[in-house]
Amino acid sequence: MFVTFEGLDGSGKTTQARLLADALARDGVDVVSTREPGGTPLGDRIRELVLHGDHVAPWAEAALYVASRAQHVEQVIRPALERGATVISDRYLDTSAAYQGAGRGLGLDTILDLNLVAVGGLVPDRTFLVDIDVETALARVGDKGDRIERAGAEFWPRVVDAYHHLAARFPERYVVVDGRRGPDEIAAEIRDHLR
Amino acid sequence: MFVTFEGLDGSGKTTQARLLADALARDGVDVVSTREPGGTPLGDRIRELVLHGDHVAPWAEAALYVASRAQHVEQVIRPALERGATVISDRYLDTSAAYQGAGRGLGLDTILDLNLVAVGGLVPDRTFLVDIDVETALARVGDKGDRIERAGAEFWPRVVDAYHHLAARFPERYVVVDGRRGPDEIAAEIRDHLR
Repeated sequence: MFVTFEGLDGSGKTTQARLLADALARDGVDVVSTREPGGTPLGDRIRELVLHGDHVAPWAEAALYVASRAQHVEQVIRPALERGATVISDRYLDTSAAYQGAGRGLGLDTILDLNLVAVGGLVPDRTFLVDIDVETALARVGDKGDRIERAGAEFWPRVVDAYHHLAARFPERYVVVDGRRGPDEIAAEIRDHLR
Repeated sequence: MFVTFEGLDGSGKTTQARLLADALARDGVDVVSTREPGGTPLGDRIRELVLHGDHVAPWAEAALYVASRAQHVEQVIRPALERGATVISDRYLDTSAAYQGAGRGLGLDTILDLNLVAVGGLVPDRTFLVDIDVETALARVGDKGDRIERAGAEFWPRVVDAYHHLAARFPERYVVVDGRRGPDEIAAEIRDHLR
């Protein structure tokens, strides 16, 4: 089983990915927890290039995330799934669709299709969207003004809209959970869903 | 005017790109000479990741070259063309189509389409394919056995076939020059063509 968590930074999705992994491990499930961007040595170096380098062209950014993801799937996710483990990834291809496709305006379908090709069509069995409004997310992360200024005022609303669009379009795998509640309440809902 | 050189390593295309740039500069043309992968600081770091790192998944490799190219177009090629310069690039998107698309088997059209999207549809005005057989090219580069072993026996013939296919498919921009002759003779043919 391949489970991904999506949402804004500050939504609490990283916490939820960890809580779910812990709960499954307590139940004796073979769990592999991973994250994007990163998840492999090459991916970590790519993450560095994107996050801490000079200006990166929007399409260069999108392609670097594709590269990181292709490596991640080949070296980590697919081998784990093939041996029967449950893989929990904090972010996966929907992040690129929402952030680069919608947020940066490169085209949600273009970015989604490209990513699907590059991962050999590996789609998650379940994607939990930890849903939260932009204001709350940015306030939690703590550098709200800076993040809005860097990305542009339209960026964050577009990302949130894209996530809602993806959830509506892929109801067979998407589960939207309300991220404004406490972490334990959300975690219980996610565990109930997976049962 | 945007001119690219394509061909195998050892074909002499790098020499031809330089000779053309020198000839145009002597005629007073504003020439920008560049190369791929690389051509920008980010591109050089990506080149390092691909050429000197551990195993890179085929799709990760393809996406890294896309990233390098997108940055190259945004920061170097497009600004130079917009100010009216002639840009000569040693390798451009056809390299990815031939090497990753055909050579690695990711699909020539898939890789070509992806690259076209990522560079905003910027196609060269002229592409000189310095054509040479695999045996001669590998013998010139000097690590023939090693290169065949690393890439697989089918790799190089596929790359050559892909270049011929691209030349036949895009006759409006492709010029095939016989790379088995001396560099000055080839350079004269290229200059005559551009006149």
